[in-house]
Amino acid sequence: MPAGLHFGPGSLNVLGNQNVKLPGSKALIVTGGSSVKRHGYLDRVQQLLRTRGVESVVFDKVQPNPIVEHVMEAAEMARESGCDFVIGLGGGSSMDSAKSIAVMLNNPGHYWDYVSGGSGKGLPIPHPVAPIVCITTTAGTGTEADPWTVITKSDTNEKIGFGCDQTFPKMSIVDPELMLTVPPHLTAYQGFDALFHAMEGYVANCATPMSDLFALKSIELIAKWLPVAVNDGSNVEARSAVAFANTLSGIVETGSCCTSEHSLEHALSAYHPEMPHGAGLIMLCEAYHAAYAPSCPERYADMARLFGEEGSIEGFLTGLRKLREACHVADLKLSDYGVDAADLAKYARNARHTMGGLFGFDRATLDEDACIEILRKSYY
Amino acid sequence: MPAGLHFGPGSLNVLGNQNVKLPGSKALIVTGGSSVKRHGYLDRVQQLLRTRGVESVVFDKVQPNPIVEHVMEAAEMARESGCDFVIGLGGGSSMDSAKSIAVMLNNPGHYWDYVSGGSGKGLPIPHPVAPIVCITTTAGTGTEADPWTVITKSDTNEKIGFGCDQTFPKMSIVDPELMLTVPPHLTAYQGFDALFHAMEGYVANCATPMSDLFALKSIELIAKWLPVAVNDGSNVEARSAVAFANTLSGIVETGSCCTSEHSLEHALSAYHPEMPHGAGLIMLCEAYHAAYAPSCPERYADMARLFGEEGSIEGFLTGLRKLREACHVADLKLSDYGVDAADLAKYARNARHTMGGLFGFDRATLDEDACIEILRKSYY
Repeated sequence: MPAGLHFGPGSLNVLGNQNVKLPGSKALIVTGGSSVKRHGYLDRVQQLLRTRGVESVVFDKVQPNPIVEHVMEAAEMARESGCDFVIGLGGGSSMDSAKSIAVMLNNPGHYWDYVSGGSGKGLPIPHPVAPIVCITTTAGTGTEADPWTVITKSDTNEKIGFGCDQTFPKMSIVDPELMLTVPPHLTAYQGFDALFHAMEGYVANCATPMSDLFALKSIELIAKWLPVAVNDGSNVEARSAVAFANTLSGIVETGSCCTSEHSLEHALSAYHPEMPHGAGLIMLCEAYHAAYAPSCPERYADMARLFGEEGSIEGFLTGLRKLREACHVADLKLSDYGVDAADLAKYARNARHTMGGLFGFDRATLDEDACIEILRKSYY
Repeated sequence: MPAGLHFGPGSLNVLGNQNVKLPGSKALIVTGGSSVKRHGYLDRVQQLLRTRGVESVVFDKVQPNPIVEHVMEAAEMARESGCDFVIGLGGGSSMDSAKSIAVMLNNPGHYWDYVSGGSGKGLPIPHPVAPIVCITTTAGTGTEADPWTVITKSDTNEKIGFGCDQTFPKMSIVDPELMLTVPPHLTAYQGFDALFHAMEGYVANCATPMSDLFALKSIELIAKWLPVAVNDGSNVEARSAVAFANTLSGIVETGSCCTSEHSLEHALSAYHPEMPHGAGLIMLCEAYHAAYAPSCPERYADMARLFGEEGSIEGFLTGLRKLREACHVADLKLSDYGVDAADLAKYARNARHTMGGLFGFDRATLDEDACIEILRKSYY
């Protein structure tokens, strides 16, 4: 994980530190808009950059599930404004967009020319990707500590993860003080996203002793601190612990990999962009992990013990349920989000079409019928 | 830790993998000589490089405590031979030498112009450091996973650690199969060196949650596996576990820091170059940590539990003693290495003169008298 990562309450101020090198002289700041403005984070970032003689322009249209049209539009804006690096300020959608915009800033054609999977052409990227800075205001995607970016192509219902050595951020800032204003339900969705990155990375067939180290610590911290952060958003210690867990889980995504749980969720939110990614994962998790766990029961036992439960698959499922209850997200169901029960096979097929690669990292064999069964159990 | 680190039995073969980029077209291979030749490692490295069209020349004079004269001589040899990167093949001395030679390959003047501490001038390095590849045949210094290099200037009795962002290796290979031939006593010395990097990094005042994660895992692995590796050198599982612990402890040295234990040992081996660094640390450790532990008893309790002892300072010291006994190094004393009891104050002063900076990372206040007392207790 080659990014220079600045962590801790107040760490946003490193932007103004003369001893910390910035990777360019004019920044495109990419953000989702309202909350980073309302809380003054965008102003602070621009002011800190100005103290270093770095000008910036703002692209603030990013959606919760960012779309490829905005990647193309923002890259054009960055070129026309003479920007030489890209800052993602906000949650995963802003930071992922920044990565994809940085790819297109110096490169010709369409973003989908470079994407692998689905209808992407998977072409090599001819020119260097512009330097990327990630400033996270949430604790969920871990994208500040990995090379991945997830962008949706709406016309083909494709939501695809993509990344390479060059899409690692050059600098990341994880300042838990910027997370104090995240409302409880989003804190829960995001925290569970981080949890599933760690869990999937721990049970994926490409897990390593190094990724295990990060994954287990991340799970331990989230099990202990996420309910505190959800129920008392102003608790800096809890916010810091969850933020650290999230950064660790980002490193897990670099060293290990997500499993097909993420493919299934991406299929759902490709069709239902209003469904928060973390919420989708929460709905799927019980049925998914119950189906997956027999492939590596000892790994599920390890995770169960981190929940304070008996080391078994049943202990794991109990711990996962208690954590959902403590975070007030135990009752989420696919049927709440306008998913049609008649379409479940469609989602199962989409998951294999657009992000089928992740099934190759599963220890369990989850065929299309098994995926439909997981979706069905997550429905009511 | 930005190096691309290849870990595991057989990983040396990545040198011949067409998909793994090498950082240059002609290598200076830096090594200590006899064992890497005897076991065929040097031949294998040169043959693998040749399959990639990369030529190499060999500098094989590195001593166990490498000296600055050899750094200058090898850099000159690299320049004359047209080498554009440097491979350190062997233990810490070979890899550290490679880092320092890479500094001097493209830069004018004397190596001590750039060293900070002691009589070093601490000048900025004007030209880019040549790319560095570390191939470790021991599990001790962790230098494959940190930017540090320790070189001795014999005429002034200075043994000084130095490093910067540019002295991180570009690529590191940790292949436990190359460690199967390390004899038991050196396995012990090196493993304890790794242990003390992790321990000192855990009790230093600059420890972070991230460095703690690596440090505790490293200590846990060494406590469990070092006696196995010492007593059955052919056990690949034990060698791999100790090698992984050592790599983790190298990352600890990057994210946290050594404490004054290392300053004291460097002072000893600056005057007694025949004393292995790890052996020097083993001699000092009981008196040193007994003096240091009251500054952070809860951290020593954490480490005691990893030894399987009661969580207390006494438990820690008991666990450390049992580990030394299990590795047959419990009886090492300074008096065995020709150290003169009348010189202890000289070593204490040298430790502060040449590597005084590390005292600033101590939680304990160890003045010159306290250092002399530690040396005295380590003497008989």
